[in-house]
Amino acid sequence: MAENDSDYNPSRACPLSEVSSWDLETDVIVVGYGASGASAALEAAVEGAEVTLFEVASGSGGTSAMAGGDIYLGGNGGTPAQRENGFEDDTEDFYRYMLMAGGADADEARVRLYADHALEHYVWLKEQGIPYRNSYLPGKVQAPGTGDCLIWSGNEDAWPYNETAKPCPRGHLPEAIGELGGGGRMLVDKLAARVEALGVDIHCDARVLCLVADEAQQVQGVVVRLEGQPRFARARRGVILCAGGFALNEEMVKKYAPVISRLGDDGLSAGHDDGSGIRMGQSVGGAAIHMDEIFTTLPIYPPASHVKGILINEQGQRFVNEDAYPGRVAIHCLRQVGDHIYMLVDDSIFEQPSEFSRIEIAAVGESWSEIESELGLLEGTLTSTISLFNRHAAEGKDPLFHKNPNYIKPLIDPPFAALACHIGQAFYPYFTLGGLSTRPTGEVLTVDAEVVPGLYAAGRTCSGLPRSGEGYSSGMSLGDCTFFGRYAGRAAARRDPASTAR
Amino acid sequence: MAENDSDYNPSRACPLSEVSSWDLETDVIVVGYGASGASAALEAAVEGAEVTLFEVASGSGGTSAMAGGDIYLGGNGGTPAQRENGFEDDTEDFYRYMLMAGGADADEARVRLYADHALEHYVWLKEQGIPYRNSYLPGKVQAPGTGDCLIWSGNEDAWPYNETAKPCPRGHLPEAIGELGGGGRMLVDKLAARVEALGVDIHCDARVLCLVADEAQQVQGVVVRLEGQPRFARARRGVILCAGGFALNEEMVKKYAPVISRLGDDGLSAGHDDGSGIRMGQSVGGAAIHMDEIFTTLPIYPPASHVKGILINEQGQRFVNEDAYPGRVAIHCLRQVGDHIYMLVDDSIFEQPSEFSRIEIAAVGESWSEIESELGLLEGTLTSTISLFNRHAAEGKDPLFHKNPNYIKPLIDPPFAALACHIGQAFYPYFTLGGLSTRPTGEVLTVDAEVVPGLYAAGRTCSGLPRSGEGYSSGMSLGDCTFFGRYAGRAAARRDPASTAR
Repeated sequence: MAENDSDYNPSRACPLSEVSSWDLETDVIVVGYGASGASAALEAAVEGAEVTLFEVASGSGGTSAMAGGDIYLGGNGGTPAQRENGFEDDTEDFYRYMLMAGGADADEARVRLYADHALEHYVWLKEQGIPYRNSYLPGKVQAPGTGDCLIWSGNEDAWPYNETAKPCPRGHLPEAIGELGGGGRMLVDKLAARVEALGVDIHCDARVLCLVADEAQQVQGVVVRLEGQPRFARARRGVILCAGGFALNEEMVKKYAPVISRLGDDGLSAGHDDGSGIRMGQSVGGAAIHMDEIFTTLPIYPPASHVKGILINEQGQRFVNEDAYPGRVAIHCLRQVGDHIYMLVDDSIFEQPSEFSRIEIAAVGESWSEIESELGLLEGTLTSTISLFNRHAAEGKDPLFHKNPNYIKPLIDPPFAALACHIGQAFYPYFTLGGLSTRPTGEVLTVDAEVVPGLYAAGRTCSGLPRSGEGYSSGMSLGDCTFFGRYAGRAAARRDPASTAR
Repeated sequence: MAENDSDYNPSRACPLSEVSSWDLETDVIVVGYGASGASAALEAAVEGAEVTLFEVASGSGGTSAMAGGDIYLGGNGGTPAQRENGFEDDTEDFYRYMLMAGGADADEARVRLYADHALEHYVWLKEQGIPYRNSYLPGKVQAPGTGDCLIWSGNEDAWPYNETAKPCPRGHLPEAIGELGGGGRMLVDKLAARVEALGVDIHCDARVLCLVADEAQQVQGVVVRLEGQPRFARARRGVILCAGGFALNEEMVKKYAPVISRLGDDGLSAGHDDGSGIRMGQSVGGAAIHMDEIFTTLPIYPPASHVKGILINEQGQRFVNEDAYPGRVAIHCLRQVGDHIYMLVDDSIFEQPSEFSRIEIAAVGESWSEIESELGLLEGTLTSTISLFNRHAAEGKDPLFHKNPNYIKPLIDPPFAALACHIGQAFYPYFTLGGLSTRPTGEVLTVDAEVVPGLYAAGRTCSGLPRSGEGYSSGMSLGDCTFFGRYAGRAAARRDPASTAR
């Protein structure tokens, strides 16, 4: 039996020599029971491995269960929902879009695999019992909660993405009704039912304290707190870290993604995104990459009509095409100098902002110069921005930021309003995108791309498909969690420790 | 004797059990012979430790020797150069400025130590033989090469820094004449002479291949290639990594600081900033932090008169106070949407840009609307920016970006010109600011702030005083290298391995 809890720390692996005897032995240990962990455990069990899963919370779900359940799918001529609604999504368009969304260091191998096999993944999800309608909701919607399936969930139709790949809606929501749809909860529940049916040994209220590694930093198991006691659990084939991101770890946020400190306490997390998975990976030489990248969003819609408004910074300047995915818009908001961001709308498009968004009316007036002065902006800033915008909007054009004509109209119908969209006022929820460097198989890599034997990671514990806040599209994270969770499960189950030893 | 070279890799420590016998034993091993390594070796030797230094190049210098030699110093009522020129630099102003320059995760403990002891450090530098005049060059200068000492080398006098701390020049150049002054070379030469006089065992052309660590990841020494053969070198007290940054490591740049991939091949490096020090630290669980932060600069001056010009992006908008330190200006350039950045000047301030800057004339005209159209900018963008700027400049004001009145004048004297300052055209040299997490003593820390026993880092192998591209000021890196290199040398020399063992 292991010593005191406090002897263990995720950032320091326990030396194998300190393990006098194993309290528990299995083939594959999965850490975390969200969408990634469930997918990994499921697939490892299907491969015939003996699988043990440890989850720190009292049940399955993790942060995945808080999501709408949107999964980013397409290519291969289209999923049933795409085809039935007239979208023959070409694999290469899907590939190019995701590659661009991944940013400067998009993982080409991962994107290729995902693009080629997303339709198979859709079929697999259905086989696991996740219900999808073939219905389509056009326009700008988020988490509609109607049980409908296909939505535009990213920047597909927005500049500059629409110049790179033929636009196509690719967000796939499960058939779940209610606030946020409950789709994430349903997704994990269905996967968890399969995990349990396959006989995976599941321990909840079980915190993994650290890895156990031999002198060559080959991972041999974990130290886990079970019923209040630290126990040594051996993984003959591999340990898969599916323990989420680090949005709740203040120290990590400061050192890796300090921009989050501006966003307040709105981290999207079920309460355990403390970076422990990433920290354990680092303890055996795993590299944590793109740690500065975050997803955040500014929910300017609903109401969808507000997409026709324009966003300005404190200098009264526009800075982004407002019809981009709100995650992209939010990243651009973070880059502005000054403390204020406003959305300008006229009477013809104004609706009360959603309570959820915390966006409030900052000024109302009969003329734009009235609004400019009410906001305390420098005379001639907002007004010249509006006049330039309106001049081209009258022709359905936005030569400066290339907004899609569908969302362009001159803002000329008084009364006018400015909506306060800045940080500290509006809701900017966030989660982290940085994590361990891995192969598509989930194998954790050192900074020199050497495999750390016996260690795998999936979901937000790794830097996966979604690795750029600017390119994030809804459904990319859960798509990555489930798809590459499965790969990690298979790879760990198949590992022959003798062959990969250092 | 160790095996083949190819068996070693910085990202994987060699297990102690594989060391059959040590080829070399010493108290402290220093890796790298730039300003940090020289300072660390010097101080460790002064402490009475037996010190061995390995340098991959054929002699001392590293990237430090390419610098102008500027060291950021002040506080404590002022250095002799400051006092003699009327600047009584208060320690708290110095402290506040450096804290702000460090960004959201400025290292308060480090800044405190540095602010309190910078004057002592100046005295120490003089004692090592580095000559300083007490002369002062006012205004906007960079690497003057005149042998003069005191210059404004950061954002002290620029918004928003000038609202936080009383402005004071703090760049201290050694008395060296010529292009870039040769001050960095002189700095290292003087320190190296002391290192040699103190009997440090110096091996050049010696590449450290990896660390040697025991099962608890306590660092015991290194594997080093000497005369073509890998050798085991033991450090009884500690290994100090002073191996520079990672600007030349393409894979690391992609994974940690992808913004560099836009900047081309202008990395400031003597050729060995391959991240090997950082990688070795990671191999034993050291955390690499702020890896996305870089120093880069846009040398808009000399000529100093161009600071009175204004910078615009492709939307014809201003975006920064142009009198900020050029490093800060460059970081803001990188955030703009679009591929073009122009500096607008009128006849009264125009001078030929320095060849060094690669800034070229993109348009000349008798009116600003001519320039706007010649650049292909949207009608009414540049012209409204200029007209707003000129209106307030006439009163010496810049209400939008708070440029210092000393650098404000209306741009009204034709002919006018636009200078191309964008990436791919102008010179944007860079180096990396991210690195290992350390205590001020240089002790390397895991992500959970646990000390990695026996391992120290200094200079750009760690994330030190300068850790934010936006706040960087010239002289902060060499200040950090020499000051905290000394701390690391002392701490390693004094370490009792028995007391810090895990």
